[in-house]
Amino acid sequence: MRVMEIRDDWSVDHIVEAQRPEPAPGPTQILLRMKAATLNYRDHVLVRRGYGGRSGELPLVPVSDGVGEVVAVGAAVTRFKVGDRACPTFFQDWVSGPFRDGWWRSQLGGPRDGVMQEFMAVEQDAAVRVPGFLTDLEAAALPCAGVTAWSAVVAQNPVKAGDVVVVQGTGGVSLFALQFAKMQGARVIALSSSDAKLERARTLGADHLVNYRAEPEWGRTVRRLTDGVGADHVVEVGGAGTLAQSVRAVRGGGTISLIGVLGGAAAEFGLGHVVTQNIRLQGVTVGSRDLFEDMLRAIDLHRMRPVVDEKLYPFQEVAEAIRRLPQGGHVGKVGVTFDTTDPAPR
Amino acid sequence: MRVMEIRDDWSVDHIVEAQRPEPAPGPTQILLRMKAATLNYRDHVLVRRGYGGRSGELPLVPVSDGVGEVVAVGAAVTRFKVGDRACPTFFQDWVSGPFRDGWWRSQLGGPRDGVMQEFMAVEQDAAVRVPGFLTDLEAAALPCAGVTAWSAVVAQNPVKAGDVVVVQGTGGVSLFALQFAKMQGARVIALSSSDAKLERARTLGADHLVNYRAEPEWGRTVRRLTDGVGADHVVEVGGAGTLAQSVRAVRGGGTISLIGVLGGAAAEFGLGHVVTQNIRLQGVTVGSRDLFEDMLRAIDLHRMRPVVDEKLYPFQEVAEAIRRLPQGGHVGKVGVTFDTTDPAPR
Amino acid sequence: MRVMEIRDDWSVDHIVEAQRPEPAPGPTQILLRMKAATLNYRDHVLVRRGYGGRSGELPLVPVSDGVGEVVAVGAAVTRFKVGDRACPTFFQDWVSGPFRDGWWRSQLGGPRDGVMQEFMAVEQDAAVRVPGFLTDLEAAALPCAGVTAWSAVVAQNPVKAGDVVVVQGTGGVSLFALQFAKMQGARVIALSSSDAKLERARTLGADHLVNYRAEPEWGRTVRRLTDGVGADHVVEVGGAGTLAQSVRAVRGGGTISLIGVLGGAAAEFGLGHVVTQNIRLQGVTVGSRDLFEDMLRAIDLHRMRPVVDEKLYPFQEVAEAIRRLPQGGHVGKVGVTFDTTDPAPR
Amino acid sequence: MRVMEIRDDWSVDHIVEAQRPEPAPGPTQILLRMKAATLNYRDHVLVRRGYGGRSGELPLVPVSDGVGEVVAVGAAVTRFKVGDRACPTFFQDWVSGPFRDGWWRSQLGGPRDGVMQEFMAVEQDAAVRVPGFLTDLEAAALPCAGVTAWSAVVAQNPVKAGDVVVVQGTGGVSLFALQFAKMQGARVIALSSSDAKLERARTLGADHLVNYRAEPEWGRTVRRLTDGVGADHVVEVGGAGTLAQSVRAVRGGGTISLIGVLGGAAAEFGLGHVVTQNIRLQGVTVGSRDLFEDMLRAIDLHRMRPVVDEKLYPFQEVAEAIRRLPQGGHVGKVGVTFDTTDPAPR
Repeated sequence: MRVMEIRDDWSVDHIVEAQRPEPAPGPTQILLRMKAATLNYRDHVLVRRGYGGRSGELPLVPVSDGVGEVVAVGAAVTRFKVGDRACPTFFQDWVSGPFRDGWWRSQLGGPRDGVMQEFMAVEQDAAVRVPGFLTDLEAAALPCAGVTAWSAVVAQNPVKAGDVVVVQGTGGVSLFALQFAKMQGARVIALSSSDAKLERARTLGADHLVNYRAEPEWGRTVRRLTDGVGADHVVEVGGAGTLAQSVRAVRGGGTISLIGVLGGAAAEFGLGHVVTQNIRLQGVTVGSRDLFEDMLRAIDLHRMRPVVDEKLYPFQEVAEAIRRLPQGGHVGKVGVTFDTTDPAPR
Repeated sequence: MRVMEIRDDWSVDHIVEAQRPEPAPGPTQILLRMKAATLNYRDHVLVRRGYGGRSGELPLVPVSDGVGEVVAVGAAVTRFKVGDRACPTFFQDWVSGPFRDGWWRSQLGGPRDGVMQEFMAVEQDAAVRVPGFLTDLEAAALPCAGVTAWSAVVAQNPVKAGDVVVVQGTGGVSLFALQFAKMQGARVIALSSSDAKLERARTLGADHLVNYRAEPEWGRTVRRLTDGVGADHVVEVGGAGTLAQSVRAVRGGGTISLIGVLGGAAAEFGLGHVVTQNIRLQGVTVGSRDLFEDMLRAIDLHRMRPVVDEKLYPFQEVAEAIRRLPQGGHVGKVGVTFDTTDPAPR
Repeated sequence: MRVMEIRDDWSVDHIVEAQRPEPAPGPTQILLRMKAATLNYRDHVLVRRGYGGRSGELPLVPVSDGVGEVVAVGAAVTRFKVGDRACPTFFQDWVSGPFRDGWWRSQLGGPRDGVMQEFMAVEQDAAVRVPGFLTDLEAAALPCAGVTAWSAVVAQNPVKAGDVVVVQGTGGVSLFALQFAKMQGARVIALSSSDAKLERARTLGADHLVNYRAEPEWGRTVRRLTDGVGADHVVEVGGAGTLAQSVRAVRGGGTISLIGVLGGAAAEFGLGHVVTQNIRLQGVTVGSRDLFEDMLRAIDLHRMRPVVDEKLYPFQEVAEAIRRLPQGGHVGKVGVTFDTTDPAPR
Repeated sequence: MRVMEIRDDWSVDHIVEAQRPEPAPGPTQILLRMKAATLNYRDHVLVRRGYGGRSGELPLVPVSDGVGEVVAVGAAVTRFKVGDRACPTFFQDWVSGPFRDGWWRSQLGGPRDGVMQEFMAVEQDAAVRVPGFLTDLEAAALPCAGVTAWSAVVAQNPVKAGDVVVVQGTGGVSLFALQFAKMQGARVIALSSSDAKLERARTLGADHLVNYRAEPEWGRTVRRLTDGVGADHVVEVGGAGTLAQSVRAVRGGGTISLIGVLGGAAAEFGLGHVVTQNIRLQGVTVGSRDLFEDMLRAIDLHRMRPVVDEKLYPFQEVAEAIRRLPQGGHVGKVGVTFDTTDPAPR
């Protein structure tokens, strides 16, 4: 079968098409014919071995997020049947309960081979069935970015009706966080450097739009929009560069969810304010298979549509797609189509 | 009556004795004849107006932590009777529930006048009765440092039996955190630059002693002591200087309580690790009157003795006592005796 | 001023109009000219001294829920200004934090005088300002029933997007619970004995309607509607009579909020199932002033309209209104108009 | 190999010795040579098919709690090595996260074959390694009773230092709850009908002893011992018979953990009090493998010794041991020795 793999050297330039034997499902596994994938900023970091020894070994199949159709099941499989559509989970070993350090060994797209394969055999406990109303690309958007946002605003630090939530930009996690925060009844303040992107945030339910080019001191803007109180929750994806404003934007006793790949960047913000204002900074690391299923139940009930950028890339051009990530021009997730990608929901 | 106050300029050199009229309790107030005080690092920062506009106005009576005897009660007082001993709360307005930014206006020792007064009239809801077995100085150790440690390891991020907790140094908050962590059944790793101080930590129940002069990479030491897993909870009082090690010491999914006055210091640690390890950084800001009472119930049950440094300072020499704080030679809290301080428990 | 009071004997027949001196606000109090009231089943129980010694002493002004306009403020009042509309809180002494038994002493409408008065002086900390878009009657619906429902499905046992919530009947608490559960993104199953009332529930967002006359074994119906899993949360208002079905309806690990006045009724349900299914039965007792304000923020954001029954009663006919409560024909809350009741929002 | 099994009819009289083929471990399994077992009241209920269809099918090997030595491991096993001692978990399928109804299918001792076997092959994820200082019988006491008590007072409703906890009797769960409550720093009130048993509770750390024969209204006694406030937490094992007193004993806002096998017994207590006092009744259903390991870490740190009754029964007399359970004369758990049971710790 065909796969795309990083070969010989850690670089986006070394992603090439290759042939591997088609896997056979073990007794508790399902065999997926992959249909679509989407990218996360993490994929850009990983292809240059940005996670050091935790990036894995070459050759490596990149990309963690994808969806496939179940084409065979092992004899002991009870959770799936042939014909289902399923997403493999980001941490294949994390089924339930709290985070443990050891899960990283089972991350798809490095160190474990990712979804850029025609077929994948995965444990039935490491996959979830996706609602029929989603297109393949929408379903493929969920495993890392969707679950991360769900962890941030629902599972780890649940927002409640009336809370004020700040989301930054229009990348995958931020738009999911916006959508989930609205589902939970919150008021959402969306930030972006682009008025056009802000309009897109408005269509997803954002209550306030702030162009941080026009208002670089947006922490103050958030305070103004909240009668001086500050936001209950800031979903921080910018890292070192924006954290100082997030700390100003959040209310006493509030939460900042820390998300994204911030590399070795040192934080440039006053910790004193975090202490005297009783602020919680919560690192968010995707989530378990159980959280994924909780999220899917909510997505199904609300018929929520994940946002995939209009420009799509075919299977063989995944390197081109990864190159686009740091440019930041996209809205939502960057999608990769397989020959079998179905543009319509099922 | 006599008070010690900061007059004319923000500096420890401008703390002088002065006379003020003796207060009369309002209908819901109690009148305390103050008996002892203890210091927090915060007092050192505040006398130089280190909290800016939140430091208050001169003249100002410094010091937040003290104990007094109830010598009169207002007509509507139900919580106290004459003869009780009571500590005023750190945030006089924070009775119950979560932190709110507005509480700072009611902080004793700046912006509100502190405990260096012969008599204080405080709202009955802003004081707690202290157990009889404590000496005056021990009781005076509790309001800021004790409640902060209780918030960190019991109320906000409760440790449970078997958890591993790291405490840094032998200052007031750290020793309280050690004692409360042991009360909750945890295993405690104590750090200090002094073997003598580490022995003191051992007498309070510390399970492991680490001299961070000898082991500057103590994050690694903590991992070794925990079979590579890391600590469940680090009580971080050093701020920018030690946070990098704390982040290495804590396990995936663990908690770092951020405590102390870190001024404008920028944090120097990799946020990426916080994200990928699902770490919680929790700013801790003392706590409510209700938490104070919960803590006293536990202290009473366990006959727990707060640690007050051997070297004491008389009322008029509070400036000298404050000067000692940044030198760090003390163990536990630095105490200030009033003429009426009772060295024995009641 | 005019009041309605229970005089001489504990009975709805002994509610009479009377004159009392108009109160003057103390320094931290506000003076309210009352504009509307609404009833809770509790008012029916209380007038027959159904809470024993906790019912209070005669003469007693009944009814806990009302709204008024601030017509004067004490010198130290900071939370209100003349012209604001405000609801007194159900437990006047419960400002923040968890429930304490002692709060009952400050319950309005027994043992403390309730809202059936032309004027009331209340502590500023014991009242909340209500959003302008609400009519007087809608605002008057909130203090007991609204806050109870908010505690049940948001504060104490928060439902999240995608959760399944069961509400029983179309009384005040049940409709509030339905509305708040929808606000938090849940799927709601509404029960009633009347198809007409079920249609009303549908207009408020109910996803499934179950007539329990037609389906007395509605626990089974709930399981069928949830693929055999059961509901995440049942808001139980019927007590002994319906609890057995609620226990069957709820999923393993789920929550049943216990609400309402169940008198001395013994529970008739198998506790064994509660144990083996890890079920939580949570008694719900209104909530604090802080919760009330959290709820108002959400109501304001969502422009949520409380449901008041069409049939209204004038001030002097409050006894007639109370008589209606056990008949159960109303939808939402039974309202009482004062001369000054404003039918339109402000 | 030899097993004890219920054959032909559901009755303790039909437990007989039988031969079965020795199991071989699958690739992810470990093979245990069983060394000891202990009983729970559940075993008494189950042998008469007291759980209906959830009891399983005959022939059935009874008893859920035991310990064995690892004598072989599958090729993919990473968590154990030959020579380790291990307990199989009560719910073999519940590794982590919250309770789910489906776990019952994997309960040892019915419906799945239990520990009364010479050898057992179990999944490595369904077993835990036990500390060396425990004897075989002490280790065998843990899987159901120990984990249930841990869930009740640590994991689901954590008690904190200074809390007041009530435990009933001196059965397995109650003594574990006493020990864990003391570990977490609580004050414990122990009830029993026997002064001799109360003395045993005292040696385990109980702060107050109440003979409920002498004080049948022990709810009042608990209030007296707590200055009228009530207990924070009651661990209820008696069910319908004692719940009325538990409801009186617990404070407003407190928790009652419901434990034990209460059959079809209807509850005889006033639900009204549960509502107006904001009480939480929490059914407790053992717990996950992860909780088991958390508990073992605490047991190891505190060198805590589980209590096993002095009278022991050999393997072949397990029926006799089960007959003893309803008589209630034992203290702690009733133990069953295998030929290989080691009376000394390792």
